[in-house]
Amino acid sequence: MKLKIKNFRFLSGKPVCIIHENTAKKMSLHVANRVSIKNKNGRKIISVVDNSTGFLEPNEIAVSDEIIEILGLHDKDKVDVTISDRPDSIELIKKKLKGKTLSKKEITNIIEDIANNTLTEVEVAFFISAVYVHEMNLNETKYLIDAMVNSGNHMNLKGKIVDKHCIGGIAGNRTTPIVVSICAEAGLIMPKTSSRAITSAAGTADAIETIAKVDFSIKKIKKIIKKTNACFVWGGSLGLAPVDDKIIKIEKVVNIDSTAQLLASILSKKISVGSKYILIDIPYGKSAKVTKHEGEILRQKFIKLGKKFKIEIAVMLTDGSEPIGNGIGPALEIMDVIKVLKDQTGPKDLEEKSLLLAGKILEISGKSKKGEGIKLASSILYSGKAFGKFKQIIKAQKGKIKEIREPDFFYNINSEKNSKIKHLDNILINHLARHAGCPEDKLAGVYLHKKKNDAVKKGDEIMTIYATTKEKLEYAKKFYKENMKEMILFY
Amino acid sequence: MKLKIKNFRFLSGKPVCIIHENTAKKMSLHVANRVSIKNKNGRKIISVVDNSTGFLEPNEIAVSDEIIEILGLHDKDKVDVTISDRPDSIELIKKKLKGKTLSKKEITNIIEDIANNTLTEVEVAFFISAVYVHEMNLNETKYLIDAMVNSGNHMNLKGKIVDKHCIGGIAGNRTTPIVVSICAEAGLIMPKTSSRAITSAAGTADAIETIAKVDFSIKKIKKIIKKTNACFVWGGSLGLAPVDDKIIKIEKVVNIDSTAQLLASILSKKISVGSKYILIDIPYGKSAKVTKHEGEILRQKFIKLGKKFKIEIAVMLTDGSEPIGNGIGPALEIMDVIKVLKDQTGPKDLEEKSLLLAGKILEISGKSKKGEGIKLASSILYSGKAFGKFKQIIKAQKGKIKEIREPDFFYNINSEKNSKIKHLDNILINHLARHAGCPEDKLAGVYLHKKKNDAVKKGDEIMTIYATTKEKLEYAKKFYKENMKEMILFY
Repeated sequence: MKLKIKNFRFLSGKPVCIIHENTAKKMSLHVANRVSIKNKNGRKIISVVDNSTGFLEPNEIAVSDEIIEILGLHDKDKVDVTISDRPDSIELIKKKLKGKTLSKKEITNIIEDIANNTLTEVEVAFFISAVYVHEMNLNETKYLIDAMVNSGNHMNLKGKIVDKHCIGGIAGNRTTPIVVSICAEAGLIMPKTSSRAITSAAGTADAIETIAKVDFSIKKIKKIIKKTNACFVWGGSLGLAPVDDKIIKIEKVVNIDSTAQLLASILSKKISVGSKYILIDIPYGKSAKVTKHEGEILRQKFIKLGKKFKIEIAVMLTDGSEPIGNGIGPALEIMDVIKVLKDQTGPKDLEEKSLLLAGKILEISGKSKKGEGIKLASSILYSGKAFGKFKQIIKAQKGKIKEIREPDFFYNINSEKNSKIKHLDNILINHLARHAGCPEDKLAGVYLHKKKNDAVKKGDEIMTIYATTKEKLEYAKKFYKENMKEMILFY
Repeated sequence: MKLKIKNFRFLSGKPVCIIHENTAKKMSLHVANRVSIKNKNGRKIISVVDNSTGFLEPNEIAVSDEIIEILGLHDKDKVDVTISDRPDSIELIKKKLKGKTLSKKEITNIIEDIANNTLTEVEVAFFISAVYVHEMNLNETKYLIDAMVNSGNHMNLKGKIVDKHCIGGIAGNRTTPIVVSICAEAGLIMPKTSSRAITSAAGTADAIETIAKVDFSIKKIKKIIKKTNACFVWGGSLGLAPVDDKIIKIEKVVNIDSTAQLLASILSKKISVGSKYILIDIPYGKSAKVTKHEGEILRQKFIKLGKKFKIEIAVMLTDGSEPIGNGIGPALEIMDVIKVLKDQTGPKDLEEKSLLLAGKILEISGKSKKGEGIKLASSILYSGKAFGKFKQIIKAQKGKIKEIREPDFFYNINSEKNSKIKHLDNILINHLARHAGCPEDKLAGVYLHKKKNDAVKKGDEIMTIYATTKEKLEYAKKFYKENMKEMILFY
């Protein structure tokens, strides 16, 4: 049926349309059924239907902004609306719910239907549950990654393309800008796309954004990489494996994450940018995301998948029991990074870990002999060349190295006794920084004056909370006081 | 934040609201977040948020008709809108997804949150998946039923309240009106609420609706029962265990049905009307819903749950391999029923099965001695008293017994050989009736002239398809021709 677009601009997070009750009746459509909407160029999108009698004429259709954008529609455009059949992929989701193994064709079918919005969020939730409960074997995981990569954009770069990824969960730990600067200076191509913080105090994109732009088109990114060998950009708007973003959005509802989905999420992005050498950092330990044992299982899966994709994947299990670096929060972290790069006056644990990771990438990519990666990485860092590369990339991203002012509100947490720090809790310190305003308030966060095994005297500053408003500082202080006993342990 | 209702009448199948983009920003609300909307009487509902800049002022909120109705709102009413926290029940759903057992308190929490729309459809989908994959033990199932019953309306009737339920799947098989008439005449209270057809050709409510009204308020139903001991009404609008309806709606998306959910769905409705004696009919066999073995497992669960609820539950496993009765479709089925009741000139298999079920109910409720139920049921039927009771109930439901005219379009399916009928397929014959227009077209359907083991000569009529339009008849004929080989088997 031909209907006329009534554009009243609403955003629903998914394709939704509203049609007149009488039109729905004529088409035998019920609420929450799905229709296919086709524009004059024949481009189609599947949408869920709401009914209305209040503000639409029978020959009109209102569609959410998601549809306006994808189909390039304008007010009063004509579209062709037809009932959409129940997609076959629903039966495949049911098959997985029953615990059966899916074939390549079946997984591809599901992922394509998620990509083009043929499946509703409820149906995707059933798929996520099925994969979470029954897991996927290695072949299924490979098919999942293949299908995700095929659903999105690709970077098509030349050269030895390397990448790194950390599974996260550690406060501070902003190694990426340092590692990328060293590797790019060594001649490797490192198209680093990062996320913004979801549950942590800052993502690499949030941190870099305090001194440069991070939101570029793929075309612009390729120019930046051509000039500098690397980039630090936000991956969110590039359309790399976009199905992954859709799945994550629904997974977040219940905060579950199957191993297959974790592997697919990481590798689909890396393969989309063409990486041939990938280093995965898995921090384990007390208050980290995984135990050493879980990390070991994950490592083996990464290695096996690497072989299937003919990609060199190295996995390092690193100590994730304590925060890395002193600053936690976008600006505080980037200041640590600059100090390490500029004259190695930054946190030593951040410097050492960055050299370890960079060294490993130099080794697997053949830029150094085995066992000599750290030496090469160190020489690039200590010579100041890594800092030069960092400045070059930041400049290409329309930024510059600058002093970042301290925010107006702060609160010092002082030791109440003479003792020694036994443990700082990653999860609680992350939460503390979030309460202070991270990641939205880029200047906010937590600065650690002391780390594990440091001696403290009564009255010594252990950490400082920074906030941009008095209210947020109070909010963070309250959180600290409620959790102080678990946040900082003494010997 | 106080916002003003802009009522532009849209139906979404769930509570949805649209607020202005700037207001969303001010409240730190994102698309697909949830808010609590409170009316001036303090009544609250949880709603999912869409954003708009196109047709709303920043101080306005548009809400779906579901919210208008529940909160009793009018255009320009003021409501109080606040961000709704992530409900604790999400963690409980996650717990079940991990395969853990839930406590009474936890299940109650989830069901209450589904009842008051605190959980979104995506979250309910995760719960359904979890219960489907990990099943529920008998205690969990009891808690689920308790919580469902508590979430809805109750009937509060006096007397010996009995009920029956068939798990469905058999074409024809309209025993309910006959069984209810016999039991009510014997002095039992039988508040029969039925569904409309979902995937079959007719539900009891669809069939009764061809000669009487079926949609009454609980108050009116109690009056009908006071006068006649029984009713045949549609349960859909009574608010009996309404959570069940919400869960079924989402289950239908992937057509899964866990045993726990099946048990809860049936028993929550029966307990809500106060039934103390319940007969469950489980047809099994070729082209039925369950095998004999599956039926047996189900029987044991029903019996155990009956003990937990201190309710007498009897379960009969009946032969469900062939259709029961001759008519399939609302009007065709009610004609079979009337013939059985009036002078026993209807289908013998329908008569016999009805007497079997009625006899069992008379026995478990103590109206007859064990082993003598069928005798008593038969005497009530053969004396004409059951038909008298049926007419009384139909009259109380503002209907009357009438001849139903045949629809204008029909097509006879004749035997192509001299043989004997070996099997008529329930599923395919149901589909055939649906293609002919059932259940919306009440006169449409299929009439079986021959049943299993009947001899046929070449040219004999085996069945007739009835439709109200030529198009639908052609559609059904096409379906028959594509499936005839599986639909009718010969010896």
